[in-house]
Amino acid sequence: MAEKPKAFGERYMVKPGKSFRLADCDPRAANGFSDKDAAKADTVRDAAAIDALQDKLYAEGKRALLVILQGIDCSGKDGTVRAVFNHCGPIGVKVQPFKAPTADELAQDYLWRVHHACPPRGFIGIFNRSHYEDVLVVKVRGYAPPEAIEKRYDEINAFEKMLSDNGTKILKFMLNISKDEQAERLTERIEIPEKRWKFNPSDLEDRALWNDYMKAYEVALTRCSTHHAPWYVIPADRNWVRNAAISRIVRETLEEMNPKYPEPKGWDPKTVKVV
Amino acid sequence: MAEKPKAFGERYMVKPGKSFRLADCDPRAANGFSDKDAAKADTVRDAAAIDALQDKLYAEGKRALLVILQGIDCSGKDGTVRAVFNHCGPIGVKVQPFKAPTADELAQDYLWRVHHACPPRGFIGIFNRSHYEDVLVVKVRGYAPPEAIEKRYDEINAFEKMLSDNGTKILKFMLNISKDEQAERLTERIEIPEKRWKFNPSDLEDRALWNDYMKAYEVALTRCSTHHAPWYVIPADRNWVRNAAISRIVRETLEEMNPKYPEPKGWDPKTVKVV
Repeated sequence: MAEKPKAFGERYMVKPGKSFRLADCDPRAANGFSDKDAAKADTVRDAAAIDALQDKLYAEGKRALLVILQGIDCSGKDGTVRAVFNHCGPIGVKVQPFKAPTADELAQDYLWRVHHACPPRGFIGIFNRSHYEDVLVVKVRGYAPPEAIEKRYDEINAFEKMLSDNGTKILKFMLNISKDEQAERLTERIEIPEKRWKFNPSDLEDRALWNDYMKAYEVALTRCSTHHAPWYVIPADRNWVRNAAISRIVRETLEEMNPKYPEPKGWDPKTVKVV
Repeated sequence: MAEKPKAFGERYMVKPGKSFRLADCDPRAANGFSDKDAAKADTVRDAAAIDALQDKLYAEGKRALLVILQGIDCSGKDGTVRAVFNHCGPIGVKVQPFKAPTADELAQDYLWRVHHACPPRGFIGIFNRSHYEDVLVVKVRGYAPPEAIEKRYDEINAFEKMLSDNGTKILKFMLNISKDEQAERLTERIEIPEKRWKFNPSDLEDRALWNDYMKAYEVALTRCSTHHAPWYVIPADRNWVRNAAISRIVRETLEEMNPKYPEPKGWDPKTVKVV
């Protein structure tokens, strides 16, 4: 069931069913944002609009929005949440980070913990990493047999289709940074004492596997960008471009969902009196 | 184990072990906030400081802060979260509303769902209503036998002591509004179409039981304000006084906890190089 493509988001979208090369996506592309201050002001406006729309989404209580953030270390997942969703605050937005699975989680299929963490109706849910790690790190590091991983793309598409059919709108953002930009950000985490807690030596092992990760991303983006759950590749070397692009796509998506305040049920505003 | 009383928060604190009358607390008290604009600016500054402290709390990963918000309908629980915690955003803050328990929750003891929702180490957790409903609405509406309710005060104190001993600092705020102020706010919810979804006719039934609720609050505040988990009665008729008071107490509490960025574990910033 094809949806009307979004005027703005389309430029970032991995077109469902088409071939796609990640190397064609420039991490420093401006894509319509030429002025830094103007882009930052746009982001603030969009974040306020998202907040107002979330209030209606919650009041309506029928649908949810799931925002999936994927990207290599230092790609700016937390920064995106702060810029786009702090205006909404923690009441209507649930952030779910996915770390290495626990023993209990490994005792279930890989989608089990993900399903459990999906946003309830009325909420915006944000996945900081997601089930896509099960075709990214798991593939690159060889944590599951290739035959099992090969099946996951279709399984993920079916899972997301079910969520979508049941009222959850899904947006998937790949935060695309360059290898040089990652080097700068990792170096900051090592050099600045207040940032050191964010650094883990295994980040460098993953960096050494950069090409394998990009190849795994390319396959995932190609096979799992669908009309019901499209992938967007966001140029993320500059935070302000990243934030402006994502806030605008989220805002447009919510505007298209067009949530409405419900009518009173079981009472009449004309007759009810407070005494 | 007595803690050093907080210079500022003390004026709102229900003193552990002392007699207490809710009627002595003026919902319109200014308590040191005389100027509205100055109080609002203070709140913004405190919210930013809370954000910075939360980052350290998360990095440290050893302790949590649990903020309990209780108050009658329209007392401003959501507004408090927005003013004090939106600056932190949804990454480090988890808001847990407690509504009427589900069938599964009723099949467990009353603290079961509450325990499950407590903030993990590193997080700020906010309870919008809490286990105190089990000695408030449950008492006023007679949903449990009086003998069972009578035991709950000590059970709650023991539960909170255990949380506190295990690294969770607890702050409990009763948002104290007057019956007149509630009438104004309920009337708004009935008259303004965008607010109607927040109104439920049962709110008026609770309003009719106002005196019973205040009596139940008085008993709960008296019996469950402890050194490890004090109750604060916040004058809440004016939002800006409420926000300024709570943000300051939260900030002072986090400053007293004094979380620290951890030292690198298992790697040396002097030798690690990004290649």
